[in-house]
Order: sequence, then structure tokens, then C-alpha cells
Amino acid sequence: MEIVSENACCGGRQLVIKHQSLVLQCEMSFGLFLPPRINAQSRGLAAGREQGFIPILLYLSGLTCTWENVATKGFAQAACAEHGIAFLSPDTSPRGAGVADSDDYDLGQGAGFYLDATQGTAEKPWSKNFRMRSYIEQELLSTLESSDFALATDRVGICGHSMGGHGALTLALRSSERYQSLSAFAPIVAPSQVPWGQKAFSAYLGEQNKDAWLEYDACALVKNTLWNKKIMIDQGDKDQYLEQQLRPHLFAEACERKGIALDLRLQRGYDHSYYFIMSFMAEHVAFHAAQLKG
Amino acid sequence: MEIVSENACCGGRQLVIKHQSLVLQCEMSFGLFLPPRINAQSRGLAAGREQGFIPILLYLSGLTCTWENVATKGFAQAACAEHGIAFLSPDTSPRGAGVADSDDYDLGQGAGFYLDATQGTAEKPWSKNFRMRSYIEQELLSTLESSDFALATDRVGICGHSMGGHGALTLALRSSERYQSLSAFAPIVAPSQVPWGQKAFSAYLGEQNKDAWLEYDACALVKNTLWNKKIMIDQGDKDQYLEQQLRPHLFAEACERKGIALDLRLQRGYDHSYYFIMSFMAEHVAFHAAQLKG
Repeated sequence: MEIVSENACCGGRQLVIKHQSLVLQCEMSFGLFLPPRINAQSRGLAAGREQGFIPILLYLSGLTCTWENVATKGFAQAACAEHGIAFLSPDTSPRGAGVADSDDYDLGQGAGFYLDATQGTAEKPWSKNFRMRSYIEQELLSTLESSDFALATDRVGICGHSMGGHGALTLALRSSERYQSLSAFAPIVAPSQVPWGQKAFSAYLGEQNKDAWLEYDACALVKNTLWNKKIMIDQGDKDQYLEQQLRPHLFAEACERKGIALDLRLQRGYDHSYYFIMSFMAEHVAFHAAQLKG
Repeated sequence: MEIVSENACCGGRQLVIKHQSLVLQCEMSFGLFLPPRINAQSRGLAAGREQGFIPILLYLSGLTCTWENVATKGFAQAACAEHGIAFLSPDTSPRGAGVADSDDYDLGQGAGFYLDATQGTAEKPWSKNFRMRSYIEQELLSTLESSDFALATDRVGICGHSMGGHGALTLALRSSERYQSLSAFAPIVAPSQVPWGQKAFSAYLGEQNKDAWLEYDACALVKNTLWNKKIMIDQGDKDQYLEQQLRPHLFAEACERKGIALDLRLQRGYDHSYYFIMSFMAEHVAFHAAQLKG
């Protein structure tokens, strides 16, 4: 790990870190906000905190984004400083000249969809690098575990936006023991049923392998999940992707059938942009903080 | 005026507006955040508010910026929504193919320095378009006065960052009756004495016209200003431009000689970036709100 940049921010530190990912076989960068130590300690949020370990809110970004969008436009830092939480923002796909790509914004670099690709062609060998599920589940947190940042990698909340909302929901519903709390901004909840998901899953998982698709579909995963805590979702009612790509009511119905508490907040007038995210980020951080206090 | 975009944000609305500037002889865009009406009214901040008029915080951006940097990265919207204040972010220079420019980031488009240029060459006729002082003083607010936004264009606070901090200080010190409150982030306080200012003033005002330079130099203007309210300045002590370009102690000494109250807050560990600005923006908005309540 190498610290690329460090900026004082909201009483804490916003870092950008790069490392060589063994899972993705490329160099990756991520953002990490560290709250002020003295605040975190004086608040004594949790047992881990007494030894100085800081819980983590993992934020997965949407199509075309890197670590930078939420770090500069999401304004999570003030709330994370207040609650004594670290804010971790990975990239959205493997990167680099040696990594397969596409001219489309919704396929290839910037569009990893938080899955492990099994397909590819000689020209676009997706399965070689596109393993964002394993990167998030197995590599990112364990890389940080061995760092000097004193992060509580066993107390992690997860959230995300759009494609990253899909990532947060599917990662947490599949591995409910890994995450203490779960929320999303305008997530793709049923990728198997919408154009963004169908295009990506066809390329990465194969057009015919519909069973594999269901492993990455929140509406399908919710049927057999062990997740039993309340989920919070904010969705703007003026979101330009609401009907075609997002369809949160499908997830609401699936949660209701399963008996999972879902706070689906339809936010009047809001769209899909970071103006929407910055408006409700503090409430998401507070939602996670309440559960990360352990 | 034409509304280019409108996004719901923090309970209010973030607008981008374009208009044909007669002063600058080009099309200009600016950002305007409007706080939620109901909050503004229920708080009853001031007499004007009872008729629904909203005070304005005018924010002048730094080198290379447009309206967009502070609108997406400054996070003024939450505090402005809370206090019932509109947030106005103009561009930093005239723009367009027909406007003189330079390959340097600190001269030409994106580097208007909030002055009226008097010089130029056949190739770079700065004085034709570069009249940001007159644009801010005479055109921008009066354009908004005739709008439907119900803005109190006679209750205006002014602030800015770096080159925009220079703009805020010089505009307010020269015309103390126009602005109710004044603050800055990491301002250029003595442009006549530092490389950024010397380069710009030489091009726009003439290398020999040192008297003209003093009209745009906060440290010089403070000697004869009628400004008599407290000024707030935040300055990071890790700012990469602190010693060479900013030198806030020169302004502190000038204010002390004049008997003007200056709250110069040296912020430990902070640099020149928007991570610094977002960290203290809410305090600046509160500082202005207290004086705009009128």
C-alpha cells in the first residue's frame, strides 16, 4: 500500500491509497477518510474503540465513478468525523491499459458491477480481471487489516449508489455475517430484469447462465438471505433511471414477502446526481453509526 | 436568463443559469442555490424575509474554477438551507472562443482576478472582455433583481477562495455599502507583492501602472476603506501557496493598523483544496447569516 495523497478534512484525514491487487491483477486506488482520533476515542462508541479500532463505512460507487466522486462530492466526511467512522471508497472496476474495456460507459472499466466475471472473449477477457466481488469480499478489507490505521475490519457497514447500491445489497444479502448495517442510494435492485444489468451480466456471466445472474440480483437473493436487520434506501422520485433501471418497488415487495424491514424513502424532487447523495449522506452515516456502535 | 439545469439539493434547489453579459460581451453561466422557501419563511430572519426576499451569499471562486467547483465540492447548500440564504457562484472570467486567453492557468480564461482590465494587445485584447469587477458590481445582482427568485439583492454577504478571496476582500473594502458581511478562504491579500498578482496585473492593468494595481490590492485598500465590520479568514497552515502567494499576515497587520477586526483562523494541517473549504464552509455560512439577519 502506498499513500498517494493526504488532505486534512473535517477534522480528520482524507487519504488516497494505491495498491497492487492480486485478485484483480492490476493496480487499484481507493479513498479512505479517517475520523479525528480524539473525537472517536472521547465518544467511546464501542468496545473495539477502547483499543482505538475504528469501524468502517464501505461505500460502493456507481457507473463511471472512481473513489473520487464520493470523496469530493458526497460530503460523508463531516458526519463520519462526528460519529468516529472511517469511510472507505473503492474504485468501481479493475483499471489500466492491460485490462479489458468497452467504449460504452456501462460495460468494462468503471462498470465492474461487483461480480466475478466467468466469461470473456479473446478480445475482451473479462474473467481475467473483472472480479470485484472477490476484491471487495476478500482483498480490500484484509489489506487494510494489516495497516497501521487501526480499523475495525470486523465492524463494517456497507452502502452504495446505483450500480454501487446493487453492490451493497448483493454483497450484504449474500454474506450477512460480514456487514453490520446496510443502506443504498437509488440502487439497481433487480439487474436481471433491467437493461444495465442484462447487458453487464450477458457480457460478464454469459447470456444463457441465468442461474449465475441470480447470485448477483438483490431481488432474488433476498428470498434466501440470512440478513435480518433493517435496510434503508433513499430514492429520488425525479430520478431519470427510476422506471427503466432501478424499480425499487420490486425490492420492497421481495423484502415484504421475506419479512425484512425496509425503510424505502421516496425523496420528492430528487434525481440521480450527487446533489441527491450529498443531501442525505449524513442520515445514512447516522443510520450506520447507530448499528456500528455494537 | 435561461435555467440550464435544476437539481433538488438539501431541501432547496441548485440551479445553473446562463445569460448574455453586456459587460463582458459573452455568454456567462453561474450557480444559484435557493433554500427551501418554507424554512426561510418560518425562520423569519429579517424584515425582507416577511415579504419572501432571500438574502444572498456571493461566493467568488479561485483560479481555473467555474461556478461548478463550489456547487459540487463546497457543500454550502446544507448550511444555506438551514439559514435561509441563497448561494450565488459566478464564473471566474469571461468565456468563449471569442474571448482572449492564455495557455497559462493563472492568466486569461479562468483567471479574471475580479478587476476591469485596461490593457491588452492585438492578439490578447484583455480590456475588451475582462471586466469581472463591473460584472460582479453592476450586472450580476441586477440581473437577479429582475428575476422571479425573490432575492434580497440589497442584503448580500461576500466570500471567496484564493483569487476569489482576493475578489471578495477588494470588492467589499472598496464598496463597503454593498455588502453586509465578508469572509474568505485562503485569500490572495497582497497581489501587488506576489507572483500570481504581479503576472495578472501586469497583463491586465499594465506593468507600469502601479497606482491602478492598488485599487485591486486588499492590503492597500484597507488603509482607506469604510468597512467597519469583522472580517473572517480561514487559512490552512499546510497550504502549498501560503508563503509565496497568500501571506495573510500582511493583511492582519494592515487591519490592525486601521483598527478593523479580523478573525484570522490558522487551521492546522489544512491545505488549499476543496477538502479545506468543505471543512469550514458551514462556519462561514453561519458567520454571514448572523449579519444578514439584519
